Amino acid sequence: VLDDLVRPGPRNGLTDVTGLRVGQASLTGDGALSGVTVVLAPPGGAAAGADVRGAAPGTRETDLLVPGTTVDRVHAIVLSGGSAYGLDTAGGVMARLEAAGEGFAVPGAVVPIVPAAVLFDLGRGGDVRARPGAALGAHAVDVASGGTITQGVVGAGTGAAAGGLKGGTGTASAVLEDGTTVAALVAVNAVGSAVDVATGVLLGARLGLPGEFPDLPTASGAVDALREAAERRAVPRPGTATSLIVLATDLTLDKAGCGRLATMGHDGLARALSPVHTIMDGDAAFALATGVRPAPDATALFAVHAAAADVVARAVVHAMLAATTVTTTAGHWPSYRSLAEA
Amino acid sequence: VLDDLVRPGPRNGLTDVTGLRVGQASLTGDGALSGVTVVLAPPGGAAAGADVRGAAPGTRETDLLVPGTTVDRVHAIVLSGGSAYGLDTAGGVMARLEAAGEGFAVPGAVVPIVPAAVLFDLGRGGDVRARPGAALGAHAVDVASGGTITQGVVGAGTGAAAGGLKGGTGTASAVLEDGTTVAALVAVNAVGSAVDVATGVLLGARLGLPGEFPDLPTASGAVDALREAAERRAVPRPGTATSLIVLATDLTLDKAGCGRLATMGHDGLARALSPVHTIMDGDAAFALATGVRPAPDATALFAVHAAAADVVARAVVHAMLAATTVTTTAGHWPSYRSLAEA
Repeated sequence: VLDDLVRPGPRNGLTDVTGLRVGQASLTGDGALSGVTVVLAPPGGAAAGADVRGAAPGTRETDLLVPGTTVDRVHAIVLSGGSAYGLDTAGGVMARLEAAGEGFAVPGAVVPIVPAAVLFDLGRGGDVRARPGAALGAHAVDVASGGTITQGVVGAGTGAAAGGLKGGTGTASAVLEDGTTVAALVAVNAVGSAVDVATGVLLGARLGLPGEFPDLPTASGAVDALREAAERRAVPRPGTATSLIVLATDLTLDKAGCGRLATMGHDGLARALSPVHTIMDGDAAFALATGVRPAPDATALFAVHAAAADVVARAVVHAMLAATTVTTTAGHWPSYRSLAEA
Repeated sequence: VLDDLVRPGPRNGLTDVTGLRVGQASLTGDGALSGVTVVLAPPGGAAAGADVRGAAPGTRETDLLVPGTTVDRVHAIVLSGGSAYGLDTAGGVMARLEAAGEGFAVPGAVVPIVPAAVLFDLGRGGDVRARPGAALGAHAVDVASGGTITQGVVGAGTGAAAGGLKGGTGTASAVLEDGTTVAALVAVNAVGSAVDVATGVLLGARLGLPGEFPDLPTASGAVDALREAAERRAVPRPGTATSLIVLATDLTLDKAGCGRLATMGHDGLARALSPVHTIMDGDAAFALATGVRPAPDATALFAVHAAAADVVARAVVHAMLAATTVTTTAGHWPSYRSLAEA
C-alpha cells in the first residue's frame, strides 16, 4: 500500500542522504579477515540516536545518545569488526576529525563525537590478533566519499558470516512520495540465517522494491546445501555474532526521534534474519538525521518509520547477494549465490 | 533447522505452561466492543519482565519489572482494551487476588503485583464511554482456567483491528526438544497489516509448525479485497492501535531474563505484522517464567529465544484466522477468512 509510493534513491544506498560520506577499509591476508565502515556526518554533525537490541553488544559513546544528555550532534558513526578490540577504530576516526576541526567545541579544542559498535569476527582469518585498530579507522575516513557504496566482503562486513554463509556489508535507500529519503547500511553477521531454510529464498527478498532484485538466484535446487550451511551454526557460542545498522534520513529529528528510527531498523533485521537479537548477537542500530528537510508531521513520520524497517531488510538482502565465498585457514564461508546458483 | 525439533504443546496455547490460568471477558452490545484478558501466575507468583517497544504505550506496574528493582514476582498480567481507561481492569484483578491472599506480603496485608498494558479500541462499538473497568477484570479472574484458550473476538482482542481487518486474541505454544515449553498469547490490534498485500497470505503463516494451519484459506483470489481493507488504515492517527503480548515459559529466568524473552516476542510481531512498533502503536510484551524447570544454559536459552519470536508470530496468525467479521454503528471490520475464502 504505502510501498507503492516508495522508490530507491539514485545509489540505492546510505549516501542517497545528501551530505553523508561512507568510507570502508578491510584487513585481509596474513591471518586477517576484518574491517571497518565509517559514516561521516556533514560538517557540523548530525542528530543521532541508537537502539541496542542484541544481548551481547560492544559499543562506544552510546550513552550520550540517550535523550536528555548534553551532546546533540555526532560527527561520525563507526561500525567495525574485531569484537571489543575494534572499538579502537573510532580513535583513528576521531584523530582525522580533530585534524579537520570537526567536533564538539571545548576551550582550545574540539572533541569529535564518534559512536561506534562492533561485531564479532575474531579469528576468522586465522589469527585472532589481526584486528582493526585506529590506523584502519583513519584510513576509512581518508577514502570516504558520497558516491556509490561497495557491498559484500568489505568494511565492517569483511569478516562477517550469517547462518553458515558469508555475510557482509549491504545498503539500500527509499525515497518516499513526499521526497524524504531514508537509507540504511548494514553489516550482516548473525548466528541466525538470512535464508528461509524451507525454500532457500532470502527472507528479506519479498520486501524488494519493483525491479530491485532482478537477478535473484532460483534457490529451490539448493535448499539442501543452504540448510546444511545454516546448520553449521548448530552450537552457537555467546558473543560470536552481531549485525550492525546505520540508518539515516534527511529529515529533522531530535535525539529521541533518531532513537525511534533506530528501533524501527531492528524490525527490518527481524524480517531478514532468523533468529536475531539472540544472546549470541549484539545487534545495534544507529540513526542519523541531517535536518535538511523539516521535521515531519505524524503521518509523514509513520511512512518514514515503515520504510526504515523495510530498507534495513533490503540492505540485508543486498549484503547477502553481494557477498562472495571466502576460505581461510580458519574456515570456509560459501556465499549465498554460490549455493543458490549451483 | 532448530524448528525441526519444535512441536506445539497439547493446547497450542499459553496454558501449556503448567500452572498458568487465563481468563477472558468481553464487553459487547450497547455501544461496547472491548474486553480484557488476564493471565494468572501460579500461587506465589512468577518471575516477570517486560519490553515496551511501541511509541504510544499505556501501561501499569512496568517500572517494577526493571532489573534491580525490589519486587521479583508478579501475580497476574492484564491485557485490556479501553485505551488508558482500561488500566482500571487491573484494580479488579487485584481485588480478587487480595481476597485470595495472593500478593507481595506487607504488614497486615498483601499487595498483588499486576502489571498491565492496554490497546486502543475506543469507540469501535459506537460508544467511546463503553470500556472495560474493574468489574470486568474481576470477572475475567472468576472465569480463568488452565484449559484451552478461546481465540478471535474475545478478551483483550474483542475490539481489536489490524490493517482494516478484524483483529483479535490468539495463542500458540512450542515444546522444545529438551521438553521446555514456551508459549504466547497476543492481542492483535495494529495500524499495520497481518497480510502480505502482494499475495494475500498472512505474513506469519510460513512460520507454522507442520500441520499447524491445515485449513489456510487460498488467499490469491482475494488480494484486491485484502488490499482494500489494508488501505482503510491509510490515514493513521497516533495512539489508535497497539498489539500486546504475554510470553511464558516453565524455565527458571530472573527479571532480566524475562525481559529478554519479552524482547524476542517483538521480533515475532515484526515478522507477522507490517509495519509495527509505529508511532500509532503502543506494542508491549510481558514474559513470565514459572521456574518449574531449572535455569537454561546458553545453548538451551538460545533455542528458547528463537522459538519465542516465532511462537508470537504463530499466535498472530491464530488470532487473524479465529477472528470473525464485526459490524457496529462505528464501522465494519471483515475477518481475514471472510475475504480470503470469498
